[in-house]
Amino acid sequence: MDRQSNTSTIEKDYTGSTIHLFDHGHVTLDDFMGSDLSIVNNARVSFAKKSDFLNDADIGVLNYLMKNQHGTPFEAPVFRFNVRCPIFVAREWFRHRISSFNEESLRYSPARLDGYIPEISDVRTQVGKPGAYVFEPVSEELALDFITDVCASYESAFETYTKWVDAGVARELARIVLPVGLYTEFMWTVNARSLLNFLKLRSDSTAQFEIRMYSQAVESFFELCLPITYLAFIDNNRMVP
Amino acid sequence: MDRQSNTSTIEKDYTGSTIHLFDHGHVTLDDFMGSDLSIVNNARVSFAKKSDFLNDADIGVLNYLMKNQHGTPFEAPVFRFNVRCPIFVAREWFRHRISSFNEESLRYSPARLDGYIPEISDVRTQVGKPGAYVFEPVSEELALDFITDVCASYESAFETYTKWVDAGVARELARIVLPVGLYTEFMWTVNARSLLNFLKLRSDSTAQFEIRMYSQAVESFFELCLPITYLAFIDNNRMVP
Amino acid sequence: MDRQSNTSTIEKDYTGSTIHLFDHGHVTLDDFMGSDLSIVNNARVSFAKKSDFLNDADIGVLNYLMKNQHGTPFEAPVFRFNVRCPIFVAREWFRHRISSFNEESLRYSPARLDGYIPEISDVRTQVGKPGAYVFEPVSEELALDFITDVCASYESAFETYTKWVDAGVARELARIVLPVGLYTEFMWTVNARSLLNFLKLRSDSTAQFEIRMYSQAVESFFELCLPITYLAFIDNNRMVP
Amino acid sequence: MDRQSNTSTIEKDYTGSTIHLFDHGHVTLDDFMGSDLSIVNNARVSFAKKSDFLNDADIGVLNYLMKNQHGTPFEAPVFRFNVRCPIFVAREWFRHRISSFNEESLRYSPARLDGYIPEISDVRTQVGKPGAYVFEPVSEELALDFITDVCASYESAFETYTKWVDAGVARELARIVLPVGLYTEFMWTVNARSLLNFLKLRSDSTAQFEIRMYSQAVESFFELCLPITYLAFIDNNRMVP
Repeated sequence: MDRQSNTSTIEKDYTGSTIHLFDHGHVTLDDFMGSDLSIVNNARVSFAKKSDFLNDADIGVLNYLMKNQHGTPFEAPVFRFNVRCPIFVAREWFRHRISSFNEESLRYSPARLDGYIPEISDVRTQVGKPGAYVFEPVSEELALDFITDVCASYESAFETYTKWVDAGVARELARIVLPVGLYTEFMWTVNARSLLNFLKLRSDSTAQFEIRMYSQAVESFFELCLPITYLAFIDNNRMVP
Repeated sequence: MDRQSNTSTIEKDYTGSTIHLFDHGHVTLDDFMGSDLSIVNNARVSFAKKSDFLNDADIGVLNYLMKNQHGTPFEAPVFRFNVRCPIFVAREWFRHRISSFNEESLRYSPARLDGYIPEISDVRTQVGKPGAYVFEPVSEELALDFITDVCASYESAFETYTKWVDAGVARELARIVLPVGLYTEFMWTVNARSLLNFLKLRSDSTAQFEIRMYSQAVESFFELCLPITYLAFIDNNRMVP
Repeated sequence: MDRQSNTSTIEKDYTGSTIHLFDHGHVTLDDFMGSDLSIVNNARVSFAKKSDFLNDADIGVLNYLMKNQHGTPFEAPVFRFNVRCPIFVAREWFRHRISSFNEESLRYSPARLDGYIPEISDVRTQVGKPGAYVFEPVSEELALDFITDVCASYESAFETYTKWVDAGVARELARIVLPVGLYTEFMWTVNARSLLNFLKLRSDSTAQFEIRMYSQAVESFFELCLPITYLAFIDNNRMVP
Repeated sequence: MDRQSNTSTIEKDYTGSTIHLFDHGHVTLDDFMGSDLSIVNNARVSFAKKSDFLNDADIGVLNYLMKNQHGTPFEAPVFRFNVRCPIFVAREWFRHRISSFNEESLRYSPARLDGYIPEISDVRTQVGKPGAYVFEPVSEELALDFITDVCASYESAFETYTKWVDAGVARELARIVLPVGLYTEFMWTVNARSLLNFLKLRSDSTAQFEIRMYSQAVESFFELCLPITYLAFIDNNRMVP
């Protein structure tokens, strides 16, 4: 059976694996606790009824939980990621309150001056009415001119920052000129249920392109670590339990 | 008695009051639910034992709860603020997960191009060792040169943003050049217990100057709305219940 | 227009109103902050765009938020209830973690010895298969016999409790014989979004009858305080934003 | 050095270990993710600065974080426990909202009819004034009589429950006569920071004896899994970061 054979992937250890994104970004799986089976065992609670291997009945339980939105068993598995992304992406990410963040601070540490420069094909225009915008690519010429200006703007801001840090202005103050396209880095600890909510919102076609790419990277790790749960999520039309 | 007379201030309505901060910032009390008495009544739970006016016994209960860190009754009063502050301040603010935020988005709305420019006397340098930095003012000349450069850097970033929005680049992408000193605006709904935790961390001398000023504005509203609770907080050395 | 005329109900003050349930239970609205309009204004964020009265455009925004599951604006209104219900109901209630509870404690306070006795027509049997149980009434004779036994069981437990408290055994220990049908009382502070999640789960036909009755009482208060939001919730098939 | 040698214990796997409590209770470590080092690495954020082994500098960082109440890095390690305890203990446990619970339900499952019977030496009386109670043992004779009555009360309640379940009354309703001394079982997923808050409140001398014993069992697992963090917690007078 197709799904059961997938369960063998549970045993593999993906911690330490990295997906690179854009010019300076990445998502690394730092640690992971749990399995598809741990969700089923949490739902069963009693140790007397605990399974040691995922069988067809367990897969049935997992689908039942997802379909009927019994959410708490999905809080059993926990992921920890290391993420490097632009500040404007991190700002959306940190709205997900049911999880833990540790971000590098620019109050005391020197900023690593990497700014996000989009690929030519990722420069876009918005068309349509408020509430129903659609994004379309711009001409290669316009994209190139935009990228050139962004590079110049970043360079200028970075120079101002560096000049005044060197002149003794406190880092926490000198940083005010740094752009929201600057990369930042953080650790993110999140359980599977809260992560499914993140994936639903941020892998969605209405999410901004840049965070959507990050969400799809996170989604790849979810699929590797919890393959049967992921199938149940997809089969239920990405409904969050 | 001094404290009891303070309790009369509970009756006043401070919603709609605004404290202005820095060049373009403010904290407005949008709404408030509760009173010092509501905390005592929550601790008593039973409606049979409910007080209608705050008396000395009630004040004793309030101090007992604070001192012995019985925290949940302090979750009864709820504040809602409207805040306008620079992005780098909002970034620290949004780390307080036990509260609700609604922030204006620059994905679709045009950015209001106000950037935070510090006063001359607020430009500072950091001295000392990591983990024990102290901030000291810089010379007026250096401060003026810094401010001039910040203004120029903001202007240049704002121009790049406007130019490309006008040329049709999507707002969500054109914004990547905007500085973290740009003002943003948000609504913040938070209960009194979570707010005390905010005040402890953000009114503290180790907090960055800018968010400390905002925290002190919020603290003024707390004192007006919950005067006896505020005294108990101060008397217990700003320990969060 | 029908809905607009409803908005006038926002102005009324329902705090202090009580709905009585079962033999010794109740739900009282202790306090409320916000309005349908406060949700719209939270979504708009900027004070420059704030409405003072709810108009058709605002109602459109409210429905858009609900339909597209933009949840955070619904965290603006906050309710506080005083609830008296059996312990087995409170146990389910307290699973709703995004809210604040203050419950009377039987560690030190004497227990008020009220136990939940179901009406004859509420005594039921479960039929069908696990995961798909249906409840049906039992014969009046069986119901009466059950109720008689429950009364006797409660009386016996209450006597044992009282006897040993009087004999000096600590209340926190003597209580171990008290039944989960005993009434308890608590204060509950909860925002409108978390409350909608409660209503979805606990007013549902799959919820246990007793908590369902409490949920419907809470739902009445929700409808009175936020009539337009409530309509949007119903129109969207009770989907939680 | 004493502490450094302790760090070798991090490598051991304690999952599956059980501590038995009272007549039918236990705490089992079901799973654990992280280490003392993971806390330090979370605080450092940047992978470039990540340590692979815990050295003296890392221990210094860990103590600094604890002492200065930098709490979020302590959210990196996550524990999952399986717990079997009386309902009145579970009721206090479930007040800890920043964690995940899955409890067995008596709505559909048959209740395992184990009730908590205290040891003779654990039967106690409360003396002193409200807010400052002290507990003292009672005479052996009184303790024995109390225990005999508790056993009889449990037996009677269990018989009533069984009789009516057998007669067809729905389990969710028949359970209303069951005592709060009945054992229940749940899974608990909780991060190290939230767990320290639990230990501070529930291992405290003011906590009820029964939950205190459970808290001390949980504390043993904490010490085994995060020995350096545990020392820092003790050294800082059990202050929660």
